[in-house]
Amino acid sequence: MKIWEQYVPELVTDLYELTMAECYLREGMSGEAAFSLFIRDYPAERSYFVAAGIEHLLEVLPDLRFGPEALDYLASLGKFSREFIDYLRDFRFTGTVRAIPEGRIFFANEPLVEVIAPIIEAQIVETLVLNVMQLETMLASKAARVCHAAGGRGLIDFGMRRAHGVDASVKAARASYLTGFLGTSNLLAGRIYGIPVFGTMAHSYVSSFTNESEAFDAFSRVFPGNTVLLIDTYDTIAGARKAIEMGRAMRNRGERLVAVRLDSGDLTALSKEVRQILDAEGFSEVQIMASGNLDEFKIEDLIREGAAIDLYAVGTRMVVSADAPYLDISYKLVEYEGKPVVKLSSGKKTWVGQKQIYRHYDADGKMDYDILCLMRASGSGGEPLLRTVVEGGCRTCSPEPLEKIRERFAEEWSRLPESLRAIRPRERYRVEICDSLQRLDLETVRQKRREAGI
Amino acid sequence: MKIWEQYVPELVTDLYELTMAECYLREGMSGEAAFSLFIRDYPAERSYFVAAGIEHLLEVLPDLRFGPEALDYLASLGKFSREFIDYLRDFRFTGTVRAIPEGRIFFANEPLVEVIAPIIEAQIVETLVLNVMQLETMLASKAARVCHAAGGRGLIDFGMRRAHGVDASVKAARASYLTGFLGTSNLLAGRIYGIPVFGTMAHSYVSSFTNESEAFDAFSRVFPGNTVLLIDTYDTIAGARKAIEMGRAMRNRGERLVAVRLDSGDLTALSKEVRQILDAEGFSEVQIMASGNLDEFKIEDLIREGAAIDLYAVGTRMVVSADAPYLDISYKLVEYEGKPVVKLSSGKKTWVGQKQIYRHYDADGKMDYDILCLMRASGSGGEPLLRTVVEGGCRTCSPEPLEKIRERFAEEWSRLPESLRAIRPRERYRVEICDSLQRLDLETVRQKRREAGI
Repeated sequence: MKIWEQYVPELVTDLYELTMAECYLREGMSGEAAFSLFIRDYPAERSYFVAAGIEHLLEVLPDLRFGPEALDYLASLGKFSREFIDYLRDFRFTGTVRAIPEGRIFFANEPLVEVIAPIIEAQIVETLVLNVMQLETMLASKAARVCHAAGGRGLIDFGMRRAHGVDASVKAARASYLTGFLGTSNLLAGRIYGIPVFGTMAHSYVSSFTNESEAFDAFSRVFPGNTVLLIDTYDTIAGARKAIEMGRAMRNRGERLVAVRLDSGDLTALSKEVRQILDAEGFSEVQIMASGNLDEFKIEDLIREGAAIDLYAVGTRMVVSADAPYLDISYKLVEYEGKPVVKLSSGKKTWVGQKQIYRHYDADGKMDYDILCLMRASGSGGEPLLRTVVEGGCRTCSPEPLEKIRERFAEEWSRLPESLRAIRPRERYRVEICDSLQRLDLETVRQKRREAGI
Repeated sequence: MKIWEQYVPELVTDLYELTMAECYLREGMSGEAAFSLFIRDYPAERSYFVAAGIEHLLEVLPDLRFGPEALDYLASLGKFSREFIDYLRDFRFTGTVRAIPEGRIFFANEPLVEVIAPIIEAQIVETLVLNVMQLETMLASKAARVCHAAGGRGLIDFGMRRAHGVDASVKAARASYLTGFLGTSNLLAGRIYGIPVFGTMAHSYVSSFTNESEAFDAFSRVFPGNTVLLIDTYDTIAGARKAIEMGRAMRNRGERLVAVRLDSGDLTALSKEVRQILDAEGFSEVQIMASGNLDEFKIEDLIREGAAIDLYAVGTRMVVSADAPYLDISYKLVEYEGKPVVKLSSGKKTWVGQKQIYRHYDADGKMDYDILCLMRASGSGGEPLLRTVVEGGCRTCSPEPLEKIRERFAEEWSRLPESLRAIRPRERYRVEICDSLQRLDLETVRQKRREAGI
């Protein structure tokens, strides 16, 4: 089940991609172009990015065609020539795509994706590439931070209701699972990706019964194997005592109360008190789950304060990446007809040419530094990160199971130095620019300045 | 073309909606419930909300069914009874929906939507209602601020590439058009909603030619009626001079250069200088367009500094509502079986009962204050805002053309007091709670406290 079908994916594009494309066509500009997708800088408090989204791009890119609905619409705009509409009718992507595999960690200014194709094709897919890659990379990068803050405690994605649409909610569930969440409340994501789904009851459920005990009792009888009781609808401590009564009744029936959930108030103080009550009454196996405006900052605080919380449900602030709801991501032309390309617009540095990233590790196997090199330069040693995923317009790798990507991220995380994992990091990872790239870039800039007379 | 089809809309839900639903079914709880959707508080710097999204909810809600794909998936989870799966197979929404029409302005704590239905139905649709309504209301509320900042200058949505997925990008285009944008670069939104589309060229286009003049020349020949030249690829002032040469050549051909675009640097200083050059060379009809990390704050600054910008292209920060990427929106049970319902969780006030908002205007026709009343109470005078849009599960109003909603917003905006329009507002709109609602709420809270023994 692809997530794109009804979207007329060929119209997931800005008008200017097509006006430029028509110019390229009319000018006979069929040369090969290389575009580089990269993030120029870190948002505040960020020190790494987690690659995600390429799988979705690969679902749509090789099959991208302009169907009759799209062609009729484009013709109706009265902007394009007949010749160009005919070109679009026969359009297919014939180029190469290289990308950092999903689940790997990368850094600012490193190409996440490079697209090498006739310029008209590479231009037409720009908006699609950006839209897909920025969202999922942003979400995975945020979720990784939440995982780190939780320090191994269980995490569940509860964000569907406040994600920016359905598309974003499903991708948030996938991105958070990829980085180590246990699962999600999002049934559509559960269906599409096979992610484990979690959830039990809301305040509305408790409120609709005459009293809390009746609500708890009904739930435990219907879902004896999966009883998590929300105890803060009226008074958290009184709710905890009712949950214990319920736990006793369940024990007598040979069942087990799994957890209680707190969703409001001072989570540190309440969780400690509830833990104490549960333990004193012989329910030390019952876990405490917390939810309500959580993110990595809040979770870090709760743990520092000694909150007795075993499971965190994280919603809104993660799925909208509230502190950094977009990345400074760009898709820039770096080479045309084999020649390096620059623009000189102020404050927006783009390194020229097709590139590869080489990663170097220290003696403990931790990431030490990366070197950004021209593809054509001889290797500098180190592990190359970008891999070819599309060649001649066809996918060259099979779809990766989400579980494999999840394992890759876990492995990758184990190699990320502690200083870069911090929720409020003070260090930046070292990304060196190899000599030949620096030289070529400088020459290209100089030449362009001369040509532009500046 | 609905935006939902491939999404299996019945799975746009959190697991707990269905676990609660199974409990209601098994407990025989078929009483009527009323849920109220409202925004508890304003994000920083916000003083109003613009209602949007109900049209999309109405596209999906009356036809919501659990198809075989969803039922198979749910059965495969091993959590639900056969009886419940059978219930879902026959599910349809039979209730009533009341909503504030799209394009109207509303305020914190006012119900944007009320859903009245058998509790099981009203619960099952919770996540869907929240996801649809929060996104579009957030986007329209943000876009209205951008329109206000621009003070009548033209605005175009350029945000597709950094929106949170395709769904969000299309809704951002619609929401911004609704509040007065001229159009969007988003072709999918253009196709779906008939929104005018705009766009010409990127830096990659300019860079792919040997020099800027050639790039400009090629474009003007292919699109002589729609030539907007991006002049900052190398040097903005040099680019402006080349644009003027182009403008002369176009005049000689009986054509007209429409505008130049700036996308980097000091937009105030550059726009003034470019304006001066254009005017001095006899091109005062050529407009200046600006883009690049714009939002209402930045646009307000630019205008205050006297920037000579005629058209603003606004992207990322608007389409992700960067300063407030989510709303404090809730869907709360307020009545069950005709009785008011409360929860007492700390810091989360919800007014009981089905409600209506009555709006009062001052002598100049400006919004003066609203009164929040119980539906059943006799009217307090004023204009009721919530209208019935679904009854007995069927839509009671025809789909509204986007142009009509756009006109409604323009009319509504003219009635919003100046003090509330501000980008950094210092006042809050007055929303009074009518006596009978206050009394009922207090009684219900007291009774619930007594029952809960607190």
